[in-house]
This record gives sequence, structure tokens and C-alpha cells, in this order.
Amino acid sequence: MEFSKLKSWVSGSNDSFFPIQNLPLGVFSTKENGMKRICSRIGDYVIDLSLLHEEKFLNIQSIQQSHLKNEFLNDLIRLGKNVSTELRNQLIELFSNEGNSGLTNLIKCLISIHECSLHLPIQIGDYTDFYSSREHATNVGIMFRDPANALMPNWLHLPVGYHGRASSIVVSGTEIQRPSGQIVIKDGEAPVYSKSRQLDFELEMAFVIGKENRMGDPIPIQNSIDHICGFMLFNDWSARDIQKWEYVPLGPFLGKNFASTISPWLVSLEALAEFKCNGPDQTPTPLSYLNPEAERNFDIQLEIFINDTKICTSNTKYLYWSISQQLAHHTVNGCNMRIGDLCASGTISGPESTSYGSMLELAWKGTKPIVLNDGTTRTFLQDGDRIKMIAFAQNDNYKIGFGSCEGRII
Amino acid sequence: MEFSKLKSWVSGSNDSFFPIQNLPLGVFSTKENGMKRICSRIGDYVIDLSLLHEEKFLNIQSIQQSHLKNEFLNDLIRLGKNVSTELRNQLIELFSNEGNSGLTNLIKCLISIHECSLHLPIQIGDYTDFYSSREHATNVGIMFRDPANALMPNWLHLPVGYHGRASSIVVSGTEIQRPSGQIVIKDGEAPVYSKSRQLDFELEMAFVIGKENRMGDPIPIQNSIDHICGFMLFNDWSARDIQKWEYVPLGPFLGKNFASTISPWLVSLEALAEFKCNGPDQTPTPLSYLNPEAERNFDIQLEIFINDTKICTSNTKYLYWSISQQLAHHTVNGCNMRIGDLCASGTISGPESTSYGSMLELAWKGTKPIVLNDGTTRTFLQDGDRIKMIAFAQNDNYKIGFGSCEGRII
Repeated sequence: MEFSKLKSWVSGSNDSFFPIQNLPLGVFSTKENGMKRICSRIGDYVIDLSLLHEEKFLNIQSIQQSHLKNEFLNDLIRLGKNVSTELRNQLIELFSNEGNSGLTNLIKCLISIHECSLHLPIQIGDYTDFYSSREHATNVGIMFRDPANALMPNWLHLPVGYHGRASSIVVSGTEIQRPSGQIVIKDGEAPVYSKSRQLDFELEMAFVIGKENRMGDPIPIQNSIDHICGFMLFNDWSARDIQKWEYVPLGPFLGKNFASTISPWLVSLEALAEFKCNGPDQTPTPLSYLNPEAERNFDIQLEIFINDTKICTSNTKYLYWSISQQLAHHTVNGCNMRIGDLCASGTISGPESTSYGSMLELAWKGTKPIVLNDGTTRTFLQDGDRIKMIAFAQNDNYKIGFGSCEGRII
Repeated sequence: MEFSKLKSWVSGSNDSFFPIQNLPLGVFSTKENGMKRICSRIGDYVIDLSLLHEEKFLNIQSIQQSHLKNEFLNDLIRLGKNVSTELRNQLIELFSNEGNSGLTNLIKCLISIHECSLHLPIQIGDYTDFYSSREHATNVGIMFRDPANALMPNWLHLPVGYHGRASSIVVSGTEIQRPSGQIVIKDGEAPVYSKSRQLDFELEMAFVIGKENRMGDPIPIQNSIDHICGFMLFNDWSARDIQKWEYVPLGPFLGKNFASTISPWLVSLEALAEFKCNGPDQTPTPLSYLNPEAERNFDIQLEIFINDTKICTSNTKYLYWSISQQLAHHTVNGCNMRIGDLCASGTISGPESTSYGSMLELAWKGTKPIVLNDGTTRTFLQDGDRIKMIAFAQNDNYKIGFGSCEGRII
């Protein structure tokens, strides 16, 4: 049967964000069993992979219980793409084959998502944040520099990026404390110590490294996809007032590193294969080590909600620099990537003002307040606000969701 | 007996950089036993701590073999400062007490440094690089911006810092491959792909986190020393041409993340306690969360050699921002630190032109070539150059060394 028309016997899964074509990886625990362990998901059910393995439904020699009774995905990812693909194929066989729908021992491995806690699934070594949306970089340039020269001279030549903080990346649902720091209330005056008054989000998509390169050995762009195991939705919380005062000349620091939120599911490139699409035209043509393929982007819709008011609809297809280009650039100097390293796209803004991926842009530096469903307005985030981001790819047959990337300001 | 006058019975140790007062921690292996394990050092001997423990010379309940037969120091550090101090005290007792000098089983735990390989001793989660030398920031400002306004407006108000790459931090002795990337040969022209032509070092001192804080809980400046377990010497290799083209607006990236070199020994704050000294006057007075103590710096001499020509003599006492101020600032927004995180000082330059901590400054942007002992000159580093940094604190009774921080360009 054609893969895209495949259905699962798991009730409710086929029309959900987690059909048989998705099967992302994550880490969960339950009230009854607090041990963190590896899972997949179908419909409203977590698939307990260590139990599935114990019950002999998985038959992959290199996968041991220690890979699955594990608080992170890293050891499983380290086994390589062949193993992840085989795992995915066996899950597809188990949960699409109607003949398995009555097997008590198999059904036992499905646990209602409502009984599960989901945890940060990756042990992140290094986290890099790119700045790959032309619309976002242009908007920021117009607001803070010269509208006529909004893009910096380097921007069209390389995917600008910088290092972020790995320790403060938390899983969706974790509350976010408003940061304090030095801010300048009025230009030219001395800084004061204050809670941030300009707390913002940034809508981003992140990829995870699934294969390492040795220090000194760049990853050529044509091999870069082999080194990427999947995507996660990402919110790079930002305190604009702290950032503004600190960031020249060495870049953002305390304005960013108080917290970033990540969605709980690692969605594989295989699950997204049907959603590849062309990227924007690149002029000037990048140097050959960044040689662009035509079909280098993904068509994944992105939405942001503040307290259930949808305030943004964007899409990863708008990104100017692709993940292959980002990774080829990141390693062109020999920088070594490790399993579980995370590279985020930077804020993904589209051409329309409703597709901007940050409050800074949506409310245009505070000048155009956003009106929420309850009639209140926002220029930046208030205490108590819940920010939810979602992402999904969709075709005629199924949709692939990421789970939400959510946090409440306290 | 007065601590500073204490002597060890280990031959040659008292006049070395590793007297009984030092006792740093590291990780070693030998040809005979390739397993990485924890050690200390006295004179020209590594002290095999797991063997010392097996032989019952150590009597500390919380230290298990698993902490010592370990490829990193993190698990040992995690036991807390009381444990590290007790370990240090027991080593002092064992190796200063003449009565122990004939014990065969104790001598067995001493291995000649020449038979040992030293490894990266810390599993580094996040690495932060500060920019805390006023002289360095001023020199860079004069060269690249306006001499009259060399320091950026924020510089005297906060310890500027940014995130660096942890994966490419290597132990002293590792060869460093000259990085390639985008450089602009002539201002205004398009970038080209090239090997870096302006490869540089940066002389830095780094501190290691020994106690964690919870996300959202800043570390108050008066507690900051409790969270720091020691120092390591650090070379933040830099490709100035790559850095120059890429770094605006988000900071250094590929110009730095191809490699950093760290010395093999973690020197404890206790070993350096006698070398505290006043820091420079701070005007304007920093905000109260950065409240400066008078005796906040350390008097540690620093030297740099290119192929055995000494080209720089500097000192950590020149640093404007102290380690307490750096850590208080880093966490003021609630950023969480983890055991093994590394914070480097930024290039340490002093007031004299022979105390500048980078080639950029020593050869003043290429305009004043450095002459080496063999008569050749350097503006930046050439392939084959060996860069060695050393650090030591010294008083009338003993000196505390760090081991060298060394790398050859290939």
C-alpha cells in the first residue's frame, strides 16, 4: 500500500497530528512509574518502547534495554540512522497491521498521553542559534538601524549564527520566570537593575545532530542531511531591553540565556520527507560550500497563541538559509558537532505582518499593540501570559504535528 | 607548622610548580593502563587517586571508586567543596608527613609525569567567554573603532560576555588545524572561501563551576565563590579575518569555535588563597548586585611563548571584572549554572605593550611585527608555530603552577 495512504488501527490516530506517518521520539514517565524512558507517539497514545522491546515486538539487534530505559534519546540516536529507520519501520508494521489490533501485550504498550509526563528528550551539548529569516533580519534592521540598509553586509553571504546557552533549555510546559538585569530606561542615561519590561518570544524550528564529525573535518553540504536526525519546535525567549544594552559588540547573552522552550517530540526527517519544498531565490549566489539545492526547505505551518488568541501564522518555508546550509557553514572551519547538539533557525517571520515570529515585530517595537480575544492589548508579554506555539505539516492524506511548545510567564 | 612553610618528602616537588600547597586535580592514563582516571600531582609525579583509595590511604566516606575511576572530574566535584577540601587535606597529610615516605604502597601511587597522558579533565556543559580586561577592550576599540571612544558605553557597567562552543575545547598538546571560512580580502569586496590568514591566540584564565544554582535563582555576589571550584589556563584561538566579517550583529562564531585549548590541571581556589589581591578601581561604581570587594583579584603571572620565544608577560591581577562579578552577572537573570560549566576571562592584557594577550594587540593589527629568537617575524601565527602559555602564582615560600596550555598549528 502507498505509504501516504497507510492507516493505523489505533483509534483516533489517523486524523490526529500523530498518525502512523509521524512516530516521533520522546521521553516520558507516568505517575505509576516515575522512571524516565523512551517513547514514540501515535494519536493520543504514548508508545512505551522499552516495554515494546521487553515484550519482543521489536527485533533490532543493536537496540538494548539500556537505550530505551534511558532519560535521553542520545544513546539511541548514536546507534545511527539505519537503526532509527528500522525502528520506525517496525513501528509502522506493528501499528498499521490490523492483525495486531487485538494483541493484548501490544495494546499494553500504549499509554494514554493524559497519564504521561513528557520530559526534555535530548541531552543538549551545544546549542547554536541562527538568524536565517530574511524577513526577520530585515524587520529588525528597519527598526534598529537604517531602513535603506536593513540587512547587514554579511547577511546574504552566510547564515549568521551565534552560540546560545544549553543549560536553560526546558521542555514545553515549564514556567518561565521574568528575568531581571541591567536595562537603560532612557537612551544615554545610566543603566538600572530592573525586571525586564520587554519580554518577548521568538518562533523557531531547531534541528538535532544525529551523527558526529571529527574536529577539523567540515561536513560537506551534500552530506549534511545525514548528520541531522530531526526537528523540534523552539521558543527562544528574549528580554529585549536587557539584550539591547548588552549585545554590542559580542552578541546576545543575558537577554536570551534565562530560558528557551522546546517541544517534547523529535520529529524525524523521514516523517517530513513529503513536505520538502523550494527555498527562496538566493542572490548573490552563495560560495560553493553553501551551494543551494532547489528543494531545500520544508513546508511546515507555524502558529503562535497568547492565552488562546492566535497572533501569528508563519511557515518554515520562508527561511532563506536551509538547514543544510546552516550545518555546512557551522562546520566549514572544522567545528565538531556532537550527538544531541541543537541548531535553531532564528525567528521565522514571513512577508505578512501577521506572519512575524516575535512580539517585537508583531507590535512593531511597541507602536502597534496586539489586541487579544479578551480585549486586552499587548506590546510585550505580561506576567501570567501563556505562549503556545504549534507546528504541523499537512497534505491530502495526513498531518504531522510537533506537539506544542508552551510556557507561562511568572 | 605554618601551611605556607610546609614541605613534601616527594623528591623535587618543593621547588616545582606543583608543591604540597598546589595539589591540583586532573585526569590521566598510562601506556600500561589506558583507562582514564582521576589524579592529583606533586612535583613530577601524578598521584593516582583511585589506587590511593584502593590502598586505603584515603578515608572519605562519600568518595567511591566510581568517582575516581572516571574519565571526568564532574562526579567528584559534585560531592561538594567539603569533600574536595577533605581530599586535599588528606593528600597534604600523606605527602608532607615524613613518616609516610617509606611506605611502598604509597609510593606505588606516584607515577612519573613522563609516563602519563593527561586528558581533558572536565565534561564542559556550557562555556562562556567574558571580555573583562579593560586594557584589551580598549586596545581593540582603538584599533577597530574610535580611539576617543574605545570602550563601548556598556563596558564599565557590566562584565560583557557571550556564549562559546564547548565541543571544541581540547586539552593542552592537541594540534590545532588552521580553519577555513569566509573572509573579505579587501573592504567592500565580496567574501571568498579561504584558509584564515590571521590566526591568533587569546591568553585567558577560566573558572569552573563547582556548585549548581536552580534556574530562576541568581547567585548573589557574596555567595559566588562557593560556586567556583578552581581555575584553568585557557587559550581562545581566534581567526581574526573570519571573525571580522561574521561578528556583527550577533557576535563571534566561526572565528572562535574551531578550537580552544585548556591546561590539564584544575587548580583549586584554596591553592590560590594566598595570592588574592586588590582589583582595579571601578568607576562608575557598579550596580549593587555587582558590588566589588577590594581583594577580588588574584596575582597570577602569565606568559606566552611562540616556539620558545617569550612574547608576553601578563597577570590576572589586571582584570577589571572579577570572577565573583562575572558569576553574579551571569546568573542575575536566573540563568542556571551546572557542574563543569566553564567561564573564561577574555584576553588578559596589561598596561605595557609586552603584556598584551593576543597577537592582534602585540603586533598591533599587523603593523608592528614581533621578532622571534630565530630572527623570523610574526604578525599572526604561521603553520608549525607552537604556542605555549604558562601561569604561576609565587610567594617567598612556594609557587603554584597550572601546567602549560599548548598547541601547535597544523
